Amino acid sequence: MTETTQQRPGAGRSPGRPRSERAEKAIIEATLDLLAEESGVAGVSIEAVAARAGVGKTTIYRRWSNKEALIVDALASVKGTLPTPPGDSVREDLLVLALAMHTERHRKHAKCFWNVVGSAEKFPELYARYRQDVIEPRRDVIRAVLRRGIETGELRADLDVDVSLAMLVGSLSIKTPKDELPEGFPEAVVATLLEGIAAPGA
Amino acid sequence: MTETTQQRPGAGRSPGRPRSERAEKAIIEATLDLLAEESGVAGVSIEAVAARAGVGKTTIYRRWSNKEALIVDALASVKGTLPTPPGDSVREDLLVLALAMHTERHRKHAKCFWNVVGSAEKFPELYARYRQDVIEPRRDVIRAVLRRGIETGELRADLDVDVSLAMLVGSLSIKTPKDELPEGFPEAVVATLLEGIAAPGA
Repeated sequence: MTETTQQRPGAGRSPGRPRSERAEKAIIEATLDLLAEESGVAGVSIEAVAARAGVGKTTIYRRWSNKEALIVDALASVKGTLPTPPGDSVREDLLVLALAMHTERHRKHAKCFWNVVGSAEKFPELYARYRQDVIEPRRDVIRAVLRRGIETGELRADLDVDVSLAMLVGSLSIKTPKDELPEGFPEAVVATLLEGIAAPGA
Repeated sequence: MTETTQQRPGAGRSPGRPRSERAEKAIIEATLDLLAEESGVAGVSIEAVAARAGVGKTTIYRRWSNKEALIVDALASVKGTLPTPPGDSVREDLLVLALAMHTERHRKHAKCFWNVVGSAEKFPELYARYRQDVIEPRRDVIRAVLRRGIETGELRADLDVDVSLAMLVGSLSIKTPKDELPEGFPEAVVATLLEGIAAPGA
């Protein structure tokens, strides 16, 4: 599978052609709907997407060369990017990012991500592209905040950036139905991550 | 759906009847195999389990009154219980628990849990029973360690037990393929949870 710039997330979404934009939107929605279903990745095919979106298969193939490229673009359209942290303090930046990640739990298509990660072993190429094009750019935003905190002295100099990242992301993507986390959860996670749970001096 | 003691995890697994034990083992294995497949919970039926395990449906119905009870028992048999923490220090206890949870990532049937959680909205009763019979008893072990730490003064008195629990469990169940976490990850998570990432005095 060769990757061209046409297949990257965001590519081809420039304005100017309303009809093809409407078709694209319908294709992306159909892909997400299928992906959220019980059969997950296995249930997504160019045929099924075309039928559900009410477009011809050629319309899809004009933009996406295969199912994997379409799925990655669809996921990118939901997951989007994290907000740019304001940069005044690491605590505030982490909170902005945590609140953004927490809010995403309530999005309609959150289940799509579960299904893609859940079938990582079965569809390793798709998962690798999803990681590279959708997830890693988001994680880089968090890593940059952590690294800046080390530089400014707000964070421990010996911090393991990826472990800290995993704790933030892991806590906020914990596997519970979306309505189960208490009020103030993202704030409490950031505070706990910063201060730790050990008693001072213990 | 009424719940009887016969359907609880561990029920009926007393020794003494080798042939029915072999059948039970085959039934549990078949359930997990089906549950780990792409179709997840939806793909598990008493019929399918019977066919795969090479037993009659009545053999299954003698022990489990429905599919939900069978799935919960099957999940309990994989997830098991967390080890009893030694109790010398909270740090050591959390590490013992973290290492146990980390090791579980590599178990053959880890994908079953993904599928049950992923279909929580579609199968809410099953998910509720899974939470009550399999997950909550495990979380109670962690909560007990955290509460003891507050009592002994090892942990902050104002600790939010469930947020701390979510950080530990969330970090260790982060959605990455099982071979991606670095060596020493559970140890680093426990250390970071205890100490926090903020520079002392920052």
